[in-house]
Amino acid sequence: MAKSMQALLANRPTGLVEESNFKIVETELPAPGGGELLVKNYWLSLDPYMRGRMNATKSYAKYVEIGEVMTGGTVGKVVESNNPKFKAGDHVVGTLGWQTYAVTNGEGLTVVDTKIVPPSAYLGVCGMPGVTAWIGLLEYCAPKTGETVLVSAASGAVGGVVGQLAKLQGCRAVGIAGGPKKCEYAVKELGFDACVDYKAGNLIDDLKAACPNGVDAMFENVGGEVLDASFRLLNPFSRVALCGLISDYNRSEPYGIKMIRALLINRVKLQGFIVFDRQDLYPRAVASLVKAVSQGKIKYHETIAEGLQNAPKAFMGLLKGDNLGKQLVKLA
Amino acid sequence: MAKSMQALLANRPTGLVEESNFKIVETELPAPGGGELLVKNYWLSLDPYMRGRMNATKSYAKYVEIGEVMTGGTVGKVVESNNPKFKAGDHVVGTLGWQTYAVTNGEGLTVVDTKIVPPSAYLGVCGMPGVTAWIGLLEYCAPKTGETVLVSAASGAVGGVVGQLAKLQGCRAVGIAGGPKKCEYAVKELGFDACVDYKAGNLIDDLKAACPNGVDAMFENVGGEVLDASFRLLNPFSRVALCGLISDYNRSEPYGIKMIRALLINRVKLQGFIVFDRQDLYPRAVASLVKAVSQGKIKYHETIAEGLQNAPKAFMGLLKGDNLGKQLVKLA
Repeated sequence: MAKSMQALLANRPTGLVEESNFKIVETELPAPGGGELLVKNYWLSLDPYMRGRMNATKSYAKYVEIGEVMTGGTVGKVVESNNPKFKAGDHVVGTLGWQTYAVTNGEGLTVVDTKIVPPSAYLGVCGMPGVTAWIGLLEYCAPKTGETVLVSAASGAVGGVVGQLAKLQGCRAVGIAGGPKKCEYAVKELGFDACVDYKAGNLIDDLKAACPNGVDAMFENVGGEVLDASFRLLNPFSRVALCGLISDYNRSEPYGIKMIRALLINRVKLQGFIVFDRQDLYPRAVASLVKAVSQGKIKYHETIAEGLQNAPKAFMGLLKGDNLGKQLVKLA
Repeated sequence: MAKSMQALLANRPTGLVEESNFKIVETELPAPGGGELLVKNYWLSLDPYMRGRMNATKSYAKYVEIGEVMTGGTVGKVVESNNPKFKAGDHVVGTLGWQTYAVTNGEGLTVVDTKIVPPSAYLGVCGMPGVTAWIGLLEYCAPKTGETVLVSAASGAVGGVVGQLAKLQGCRAVGIAGGPKKCEYAVKELGFDACVDYKAGNLIDDLKAACPNGVDAMFENVGGEVLDASFRLLNPFSRVALCGLISDYNRSEPYGIKMIRALLINRVKLQGFIVFDRQDLYPRAVASLVKAVSQGKIKYHETIAEGLQNAPKAFMGLLKGDNLGKQLVKLA
């Protein structure tokens, strides 16, 4: 029997997440039964959506119960399999949660090729965040050559891909990020045309300078003051893909958006979306991203925490914006 | 030469509109030149969008200059025509502004049949407000049979048509209006299934009671607290047609919308729209509305102010919600 180290939800945060919201335990896993397999997880993905799952409020997905293993994307290797779709040694990506081993029936698990891109890429640039960027930009922002695309959290796992895809579409890519280091990374490493530091205290004027022709498509990850300021830049008939509102997740009371009028007078189409709704596009998006990454057309950066015991702290850092690019936990 | 009584924009309001923002004058109009015609206006339409035109701020249409005749929809009769498209006695609908007579080249003017529906209907239920309702509901809300449609300002010229069209589509039509009189009118006269009084002080709970299955399509005219409360009712994959934000128009600082998160978690599609962008749909919408009104399938109510000198006061009342149904000024 395998022993799995697990991070459970110990209690629900009010406002800011704290380490005490989690409990790290060691559990004996049963041997895989008929049709089941045992997976050793090598990488755990940390993503902003997990904050929502810690609250017992109605959302698009079921929240985590107290005492349950925290939900999360993983890449691992099959140790033992009684399921004909998988064999020992297969690299598998799925949602096996915050734990070092898992027994599963294989549902939602995909075998991936780790020779073209490394295993961890399937949690970031070629995984859920990359696909989120791909679908949100190409399907909902639908930018045309020469248009300006504005993306918040530009140095994050999603935003960084949005900007690079926008460049590949022949657009002006403008990012918003917190602090000069992230902005420099977006421009120098990822090839954004400009990146505005929202912490510099001059957001609206800096956005105007970075977007001399306004904004035709906006990919929103942040919400709050950043969203409100961005709305001021929208051009007539622009599109907004609403992907996340990370600045609200740790607030007990959400920020009030004042610039709704910009959506009216500019006849804006705003679409809230969740990547999991678009299973129809998922395989095409992954294939396209794997190809672009393997050809060096899309770059990425990973921030890595070592060991499951450091996952809660790394997650708290992610929500504060401490990470650059994709936040991962190396489990083995 | 005709003498026209005109209402000019005397100065720009800050916050609430006042009578002193207007100046009523009498002007001698020139005789119509080549290709021109002289129109006597019988009816002037008052609409919330006019508030925006009084501010010198960038919007979807040019604002009114100080000293200019206020813009506005009119129905009148041709007195004299040097334009082959029009002849004396024709009833014409257009945007000839707050004045009793106008000389025009006929651009944007349409001859209408006043035997099927009365002239004033072309400013309301069969005019711009009715077409706004038709396009916003059928094109952007796209409700399916059995769905719940929520519309604010339900007793107004636009909202009243939205609810009746929703009923004709086989939907549950729920309105929001200010005060028991308007709510009773929406339910008893127009056939809404329910109408919530936002002034009753229990908006969120009353909305929940009126929409037991949530809201699938929302037609927004009001903004502010009403919009924020309505967002709480949205179902997954619902649609919002953003048509107006009248509650903000008289504020110096807009209300901050807190429930943006509802658009994200429910994957809502929100579309800001202006009826004038959809010239492609306009004739079909008018024909459809004229037919439904003449068959008694769509009802309407008019609130009528007598004489141009009372237009400013009636307009101020419209912005406060004093009117029931379409607000008109009878000019002759």
